Amino acid sequence: MLPPLRTGKRAAMTSEAPFRPKARAPRGFQDRRSAALVAERRILEAVSRVYEAYGFEALETGAFEYADALGKFLPDSDRPNEGVFALQDDDEQWMALRYDLTAPLARFVAENWDGLPKPFRRYAFGTVWRNEKPGPGRFREFVQCDADTVGSARAEADAEIIAMAVEGYAAAGLPADAYVLKINNRKLLNGLLSAAGVEDAGQKLVVLRAVDKLDRLGVEGVKALLGAGRKDESGAFTKGAGLGSAAIDSVLAFVEAGRDTRQGTLDRLAQVIGGSAEGDEGLAELDRIGAALGGLGVDESRAKFDPSVVRGLEYYTGAVFEAELLAEVTDENGAVMRFGSIGGGGRYDDLVARFTGERTPATGFSFGVSRLAAALAASGRATASQTRGPVVVIAFDPNHMASYFAAAADLRAAGMAAEVYLGSSGMKAQMKYADRRLSPAAVILGGDEIAAGTVTIKDLDLGRALSAGVSDNEAWRKERPGQVNVPRGDLVATVRAIVEAAGR
Amino acid sequence: MLPPLRTGKRAAMTSEAPFRPKARAPRGFQDRRSAALVAERRILEAVSRVYEAYGFEALETGAFEYADALGKFLPDSDRPNEGVFALQDDDEQWMALRYDLTAPLARFVAENWDGLPKPFRRYAFGTVWRNEKPGPGRFREFVQCDADTVGSARAEADAEIIAMAVEGYAAAGLPADAYVLKINNRKLLNGLLSAAGVEDAGQKLVVLRAVDKLDRLGVEGVKALLGAGRKDESGAFTKGAGLGSAAIDSVLAFVEAGRDTRQGTLDRLAQVIGGSAEGDEGLAELDRIGAALGGLGVDESRAKFDPSVVRGLEYYTGAVFEAELLAEVTDENGAVMRFGSIGGGGRYDDLVARFTGERTPATGFSFGVSRLAAALAASGRATASQTRGPVVVIAFDPNHMASYFAAAADLRAAGMAAEVYLGSSGMKAQMKYADRRLSPAAVILGGDEIAAGTVTIKDLDLGRALSAGVSDNEAWRKERPGQVNVPRGDLVATVRAIVEAAGR
Repeated sequence: MLPPLRTGKRAAMTSEAPFRPKARAPRGFQDRRSAALVAERRILEAVSRVYEAYGFEALETGAFEYADALGKFLPDSDRPNEGVFALQDDDEQWMALRYDLTAPLARFVAENWDGLPKPFRRYAFGTVWRNEKPGPGRFREFVQCDADTVGSARAEADAEIIAMAVEGYAAAGLPADAYVLKINNRKLLNGLLSAAGVEDAGQKLVVLRAVDKLDRLGVEGVKALLGAGRKDESGAFTKGAGLGSAAIDSVLAFVEAGRDTRQGTLDRLAQVIGGSAEGDEGLAELDRIGAALGGLGVDESRAKFDPSVVRGLEYYTGAVFEAELLAEVTDENGAVMRFGSIGGGGRYDDLVARFTGERTPATGFSFGVSRLAAALAASGRATASQTRGPVVVIAFDPNHMASYFAAAADLRAAGMAAEVYLGSSGMKAQMKYADRRLSPAAVILGGDEIAAGTVTIKDLDLGRALSAGVSDNEAWRKERPGQVNVPRGDLVATVRAIVEAAGR
Repeated sequence: MLPPLRTGKRAAMTSEAPFRPKARAPRGFQDRRSAALVAERRILEAVSRVYEAYGFEALETGAFEYADALGKFLPDSDRPNEGVFALQDDDEQWMALRYDLTAPLARFVAENWDGLPKPFRRYAFGTVWRNEKPGPGRFREFVQCDADTVGSARAEADAEIIAMAVEGYAAAGLPADAYVLKINNRKLLNGLLSAAGVEDAGQKLVVLRAVDKLDRLGVEGVKALLGAGRKDESGAFTKGAGLGSAAIDSVLAFVEAGRDTRQGTLDRLAQVIGGSAEGDEGLAELDRIGAALGGLGVDESRAKFDPSVVRGLEYYTGAVFEAELLAEVTDENGAVMRFGSIGGGGRYDDLVARFTGERTPATGFSFGVSRLAAALAASGRATASQTRGPVVVIAFDPNHMASYFAAAADLRAAGMAAEVYLGSSGMKAQMKYADRRLSPAAVILGGDEIAAGTVTIKDLDLGRALSAGVSDNEAWRKERPGQVNVPRGDLVATVRAIVEAAGR
């Protein structure tokens, strides 16, 4: 099980030449520095606060689950148990890193059901891993932030999850017009197909897959896939669902039933759904979700009923939710282009039953945290690409280190980040270091200053601004912009003024 | 590479009997609920704020590193590359989950050296994994929180790390007298041994191992291990370092050189260290650390020089730090008993050199976050064993859900966590649910209340307190303690009074 200590050609080298591994991160894993982390932490804190306000408790499970407990429910995929990082424990059991936060929740709930308050409402955030082919911008490790209610069959539980998602996006700082949360119910299309005489589960799955391609293929493409099949540009043929033309028309009328208001869509759906028991059930659930969303004050334009949403083919059993970012850009026809999903969820009444054999109603939503961070950046709400550094106290003389440390400690005690330069380079390199850290100010305590009881403070922000805007470099140098010499007792107040000016 | 979907006997079952995996977390991995998570998050936030105030920037690397990049530097261990969770990627390269945050830092620094500000100062927190035998209280996954300075050879960099650790413990809420941070320098004992004519690295390692057993074996046991060897109670013999009696006396005088003040210990060390170049270097470094700690105002009783500290046999190259919790309990002789390490670190100038071949001075400290949380609990500073739940709005009638949701929304808008009960049970079970969640209050909006424009509020904390303290249950029931009926408009103010009383 354990890897060889040295791999490849290097291992054959003589012991005199020490082995030097190449320093590189594994494929699909990224190193993230402060700006990215600060943005992510803000999202997690904001969303967690919303979840807690709604009474959801925090839960954290381990990174590993037994592979049999993860099962085949990889969301948005119907491949069994692929795409995970798995290894065999020393007792021969296969373990896999979690690929989402829902499968571990189902295991936890099944394991602890008797001792839990019911319904059990938990939120969680953490890293999940997918063993997929990495590429530019495609990582094998990312962060999710979920809330789920287990043990409530009420449609109001779905509505509450939707309301929290909408509140979470607002709390994270996403502008209200930047996204839309689309709501559908799996029972609608199922019921419509039953009414049309389609009962085979495999055939229903082919229909779902065809509907899921509406964005990409348009109505004609979907029509072909609902019928005999479709030949793409390369000439490759995809076998269709084999529906008759009446059934095809019903499905198309259904996926195009979306209207501007939730009630408008419900009214249209009632006309096209065709009166099966399952369809009526789905309609009644959407109706209750709509009523609760109204009661919760969720804006019509933020959370819409949209019958074209599929999401998680074999995973969801009722309501499904998908939040899509509406990019500011429009295509050549003036139509709004789609950026993609920034979160989603739905009702999955079968997941706990895998363990217990008893159907346990559950519903939840998952924020795609890095997608949301990217969305915030795209909408201009992100933090600066680099975060501000500390005030840097320049170090000249090893014998004066205590004075430098005291200056830094004074600044920290006043609430400002500050450090003493601890490298071995000279003044010029130290100023460059402070500049690289985006420090607001440098504090200079040379022999003269210490003897005179003063301190020199360099306003680095002003220096950077002047340097960027001033063409006559000579004149700029003469002025020595933003450098002041003040009594040592004025250090904190002088630096604070610079830091506060920089913060504006 | 992928595991079988079904394992063991179950796989042999007929397809009619559906496979039901047993719901259980993998061995050595724990599920943690809100109280434990809240305690951990508080520690991470407090320590991160200290690190940021000192100008350390956040960094997060991926969970995996290539196994060759991790190398043999498992801290506190000299086994090569054991104890990690490893798997082979689809390109045949071995990857392993990080076992600490320092090895990934060394890889990151080596990979990005040219573009980094120097010295590079970063903090990080995150999960690390050890593939070790799990047991009660021994987990294979835990959280570390580190700060490291890479690229500074100055002893002041060590002093700063120590000062941050002391400030971090205070920020996390650990009482000042609950722990001591012990400081040593690897060069002292090395130099002493050189002066005594011991030059062999293997022999020096045996001496270090012997010194490390001082706590457990006492002076006589260490003395035996420094000489010919030691037979334990079971009769098993451990071969000793084979030092002569003069060298043994020097080593023992050294490990017992600790005094109450840092200067006192330095003075004593100067007498026993014996004047080798390396020993003098170690002494000079400790001297500079002591001066800087004085300048930084670090209390003598929090950070002490202690020559008996070993820590990380093959890992550290200069200063070493170990924070030990001093439990309140004393043993039968009245001596203070040790609870164990709650953090540590030191100078490791060789770790980046593994990649680059160039020695890169580095120093750092790692908080053992779960140990610290346990220490806080032991010192009475932990949060309650369960965190307070939300206000629960009781649900009677599906047709009044909008009224319940509106009440919960009003409470949330006023800053209180609140939820509508979304299960399907009756009044009694709902009150039990609210009690289980440790809710401060239940909000009752029955048909009567809604018709009259009022709301009934039950003070659950008061109820619990009375229930616990009152012996005459009949009298208690009669009084209906803590239940009030108020106009609906007074909902928020009435609940707020109860929540604030509960918070006291």
